[in-house]
Amino acid sequence: MTEPLTAVDPAAFLAELASAVPVVLDPHVLMAYQRDQAALAEAGTPLALVRARSVDDVAATLRTASAHGVPVVTRGAGTGLAGGANAIDGCVVLSTAAMDGIISIDKVARTATVQCGVLNGTLSAAAADQGLWYAPDPASKAVSTIGGNIATNAGGGCCLRYGVTGDHVLALTAVLASGEVLRTGTATRKNVAGLDLTRLLVGSEGTLAVIVEAVLRLRVPPPPQATLVAFFDSLRKAGDAVVAIEQAGTPSLLELMDRTTIAAVEEHTRMGLDLTAGALLIVQDESLDAYADACRGAGFVAQTDDPEEGEQFLAARRLALPALERKGLTLLDDVAVPPPLIADMMDRVQAIADRYGLVIGTFGHAGDGNLHPTIVFDREAADTARAAFDEILAAALSLGGTITGEHGIGSLKTPHLADMLGPTERALMARIKAAFDPGNILNPGRAL
Amino acid sequence: MTEPLTAVDPAAFLAELASAVPVVLDPHVLMAYQRDQAALAEAGTPLALVRARSVDDVAATLRTASAHGVPVVTRGAGTGLAGGANAIDGCVVLSTAAMDGIISIDKVARTATVQCGVLNGTLSAAAADQGLWYAPDPASKAVSTIGGNIATNAGGGCCLRYGVTGDHVLALTAVLASGEVLRTGTATRKNVAGLDLTRLLVGSEGTLAVIVEAVLRLRVPPPPQATLVAFFDSLRKAGDAVVAIEQAGTPSLLELMDRTTIAAVEEHTRMGLDLTAGALLIVQDESLDAYADACRGAGFVAQTDDPEEGEQFLAARRLALPALERKGLTLLDDVAVPPPLIADMMDRVQAIADRYGLVIGTFGHAGDGNLHPTIVFDREAADTARAAFDEILAAALSLGGTITGEHGIGSLKTPHLADMLGPTERALMARIKAAFDPGNILNPGRAL
Ligand SMILES: Cc1cc2nc3c(=O)[nH]c(=O)nc-3n(C[C@H](O)[C@H](O)[C@H](O)COP(=O)(O)OP(=O)(O)OC[C@H]3O[C@@H](n4cnc5c(N)ncnc54)[C@H](O)[C@@H]3O)c2cc1C
Ligand SMILES: Cc1cc2nc3c(=O)[nH]c(=O)nc-3n(C[C@H](O)[C@H](O)[C@H](O)COP(=O)(O)OP(=O)(O)OC[C@H]3O[C@@H](n4cnc5c(N)ncnc54)[C@H](O)[C@@H]3O)c2cc1C
Repeated sequence: MTEPLTAVDPAAFLAELASAVPVVLDPHVLMAYQRDQAALAEAGTPLALVRARSVDDVAATLRTASAHGVPVVTRGAGTGLAGGANAIDGCVVLSTAAMDGIISIDKVARTATVQCGVLNGTLSAAAADQGLWYAPDPASKAVSTIGGNIATNAGGGCCLRYGVTGDHVLALTAVLASGEVLRTGTATRKNVAGLDLTRLLVGSEGTLAVIVEAVLRLRVPPPPQATLVAFFDSLRKAGDAVVAIEQAGTPSLLELMDRTTIAAVEEHTRMGLDLTAGALLIVQDESLDAYADACRGAGFVAQTDDPEEGEQFLAARRLALPALERKGLTLLDDVAVPPPLIADMMDRVQAIADRYGLVIGTFGHAGDGNLHPTIVFDREAADTARAAFDEILAAALSLGGTITGEHGIGSLKTPHLADMLGPTERALMARIKAAFDPGNILNPGRAL
Repeated sequence: MTEPLTAVDPAAFLAELASAVPVVLDPHVLMAYQRDQAALAEAGTPLALVRARSVDDVAATLRTASAHGVPVVTRGAGTGLAGGANAIDGCVVLSTAAMDGIISIDKVARTATVQCGVLNGTLSAAAADQGLWYAPDPASKAVSTIGGNIATNAGGGCCLRYGVTGDHVLALTAVLASGEVLRTGTATRKNVAGLDLTRLLVGSEGTLAVIVEAVLRLRVPPPPQATLVAFFDSLRKAGDAVVAIEQAGTPSLLELMDRTTIAAVEEHTRMGLDLTAGALLIVQDESLDAYADACRGAGFVAQTDDPEEGEQFLAARRLALPALERKGLTLLDDVAVPPPLIADMMDRVQAIADRYGLVIGTFGHAGDGNLHPTIVFDREAADTARAAFDEILAAALSLGGTITGEHGIGSLKTPHLADMLGPTERALMARIKAAFDPGNILNPGRAL
C-alpha cells in the first residue's frame, strides 16, 4: 500500500474543509473519536472530525481530503473489534452516525431503504413494527450502525441459517474518494448485470468508499424457536455433537461456550451452570426432535419450547464476553475453521493458554465454525497476550481456517494478512483499492 | 473498454502457443466452438481452440495471449444464453470442459472441491452418493459446467430458499491474464479477511480471470417436498398470490407460467392443462398448509405430498422453453423486478407483444421476481423480435428492475448496460477490469 501522494498542508486543508462542512477541532471531542472497541490496536491523533449529515457532506469531505492527500477514517458507532475505525495521525474522522434515517420500508416487497448511520436495533424494531424481520444480529445490534455492519460484513447467531449481513444487502449508495456518488445493485432479489460492486463493498472496512445508503432485504419473521442446552464433559464431545447436529438438520442457532467461559458466567450470575462441564452447546430450531440422537454424548440436556425460557438459556451465551471482561483486560479473537475441526482448534487454544500461563475463554458461533478465543490478561502481560493472540491466528491458518470470521482485519490484524493471502492476491487487492481510491486516502494501510 | 494494446501477429502467436499447449486449428471444430445458446447474439471467427487439461495449460494460454494481445474467450459447456462464450474475431477459445474432475468431497465438512469443467449434474450426483446435496439447480444442470455456473452466477428453482450459485462458493482458484494463479476465499463458512475476491469473480462472465477450481458448499438434503399447482384466471390474481404466498412462508420453489406458455406446453404434451387460465403457479414446501389462504384467488388448485407426483406437476414448467421452441425461433429474455411488480411487468410484456404482433410466452422464478419473457418469431421478423426484446428490458428498468436476473449480460445485452449503470459505475468497473486484466484480453467488450 503506497502512502498518499500529495503533501499535506493542514491549515490550508482545514480552511477549505471548514468552508464546505462543519468541522470539529476540539481535542476532547476528537479523543472520543480516536478508538473503537479493539484492545491493543494502535490509534493515532486525528486532525479533525466531520459529523456528516448528508451525502453532500460526505462527498465534500472526501473531495477536499483527496485534493490535499489527507487520510479519512470512516466511523459508524465505533463498536468495531479490529481497530478499523481507529484514527490515523493527521486524519479526518468522518462520522456517519448522524445519517441515521430510515428512508422507507416496503412491506410488500420486504425491503428497507436506510441511511448508513441507523442502528441495527432501530431498523430491526421498525421492521418488527411492520410485521417483518431484519435477520443479521451481531451481539452489538443495539449499538452498531448498519453502515458499520455492512463495512465489516457482520455476523451473529442467526447467520447460521439466514446468512451474514452481506446476504441481506440488495443495493448500496456509496461515495468514492473523488466525491463521486456510486450506486450498486438493484432492489430485486436477483441481479447479475455487471460486476458485483455491492459484494465488493461489503466487508471492505472503509477502504474502498463511504457507504451512505443501503437497500436491505427483510424477511417474514421465523416461527417460534425451541431451545436446547447440552453440557458435555469434554470439548471433543461437544465438537463431535456440532457435526452430528448439522448432519441432522439446519438449526437456526448453534452456539458454544467452553469451561473457562462457563465458569466466568457462573461466577458473574450464579445461574447454576455445571462447572464440571468441558463445554456447552445451545441449539435453536422450530423442533428439536432431530437433534436428540446428536446430543446423546452430552452429560445433561435441558430443553424448552417456550421462547421466553429459551431467551434465558441464551442469556448465558450473551454474557460470555461481559463475564470474561470482569476478570481482567481482554483481547477478543475471531477465527473460523471448518466446523469438524472445532475441537482441534479449541485444543490448540488450550495448549497456547497453558504454554503462556494465560486464561483464554472460548465461545462462539459453533455452527459456522466461528470461534472467539478471548484472552484475559493484566496490563503488564500485554506482550504475552499479544503473542498468544498471534499463535491463535497461526493455529487457525494451519487448520485451513481464516484469521477473521466476522470482525475484520482492521488495523489489528493487518500484519497477519500476509500469512493468509499470497503476494498475487495482495497485489490484486491493492490494484482494486487503487481503482476506487487512487490517492489512497480511505483508511490507508488498513484491512488489505 | 479499450482495445488490446499490442499488435497481433497471428502466425508468431500460434507458433508460440502451440509450443506450450495443444492447439486446434481445424475450421470445422472451431465452428462448433463459435456460439453458445443465445439466439441473435453476434459471434466472430476464432483463430484457435485450446482444450485445457490443467491449470498449467490455462496459465500458458493466458500468458502467451497476453504477450501477443490476443483476446481469449473462456468456454465451459457453451449453454449460456447471453452470448458470453461466443467467439470474437481472431480470439482463442479456451475450453475448460475437459478439466472435469471432482477432486474431493468432504462428507463431514460438507464441501466439494472440483475442477471448473465438471458438470453441475455430475457433481450433484456425486454429492447425492454421499448423502449430500448441491443446491443450485439451473434448468441446464445436466449439461452446464460449474465454472460456467459460477461465471454467470446461475440461478434456478431452488434459489428462492437456498440462494444462487454464488451463495454456495466458498473458495476459488483462478488464473489471471498474466498467467498468475489466484486463490480466493477459504473452506470456512465465514471469512472477512481482505476484499471478497470470490464474490467478485462470481458472475464476472470470463472478463476478470479463468476459474479453474472451486470449493463449494454442500447441504443436507431437504425433507420431501409437497407440491401445489394453482390456476388463476388472470395474471393479476397470480401476481397477488405470489405476494401472499411469500407473506405466508418461504416456499422452496415458486414458479409461474402465463397463458401463452400453458397453451404451448398443452399443445406439446396433452397433459390436460386448463387453457382458459391466465397463469399458473407451482409451489413446493414441506407443508402447504400455510398457503391455502394465499391461493384462494385461484380457480383450481391441485396438490400432492408425493414427491414423484410433484415431479410430474413440475414437468409442465420444465417443458416451458422446449414447448415454446417448437413454435418458432425463440429469443429468451431474463429480467427481474421486485416480486410485487410481477403482474405489472407481465402486463407490459403483453402490451409489447400486442404492439409488435408477436407471440411472447412468459414463465419464470416468480418467487424471486425473475421472469423469462420468450419471444417466438420467424426468421424474417428477427428485427421486430429484437425491438420487442429491447422494450422488455426498458420495461424492467422502469419498474426498478434489472436487465438480467441470472443469464448475464454477455455480448447480447452489452448495449443495454448503459441504461442500467451510470458513467461512474461503468468507469469503476472498467478500472477493476484493468486491475485484473490490464491488456484487456479476457472477453473484451463483454459483460461490463
Ligand atoms: C459487545 C460487542 C459485541 C459484538 N458482537 C459482534 C457480533 O456478534 N458479530 C460481529 O460481526 N461483530 C460484533 N461486534 C463488532 C462490531 O460491533 C461490528 O463490527 C459492527 O459491524 C461495527 O459497526 P460500527 O457501526 O460500530 O462500525 P465502526 O466500528 O465504527 O467501524 C467498523 C469498520 O467499518 C468502517 N465503516 C463504518 N461505517 C462505514 C460506512 N458508512 N462506510 C464505509 N465504511 C464504514 C470503519 O471504517 C471500520 O473499518 C461486537 C462488538 C461489541 C463491542
Ligand atoms: C435449456 C437451458 C436451460 C437453462 N436454464 C438456466 C437456469 O435455470 N438458470 C440459469 O441461470 N441459467 C440457465 N441457462 C443458461 C446457462 O446454462 C447458464 O448460464 C450456465 O451457467 C452456463 O454454463 P456453461 O458451462 O454452459 O458456460 P458457457 O456458456 O460456456 O459460458 C458462460 C459464461 O461464463 C464464462 N465462463 C465459462 N466457464 C468459465 C470459467 N471456467 N472461468 C471463467 N469464465 C467462464 C464464459 O466466458 C461465458 O461468459 C440455461 C441454458 C439452457 C440452454
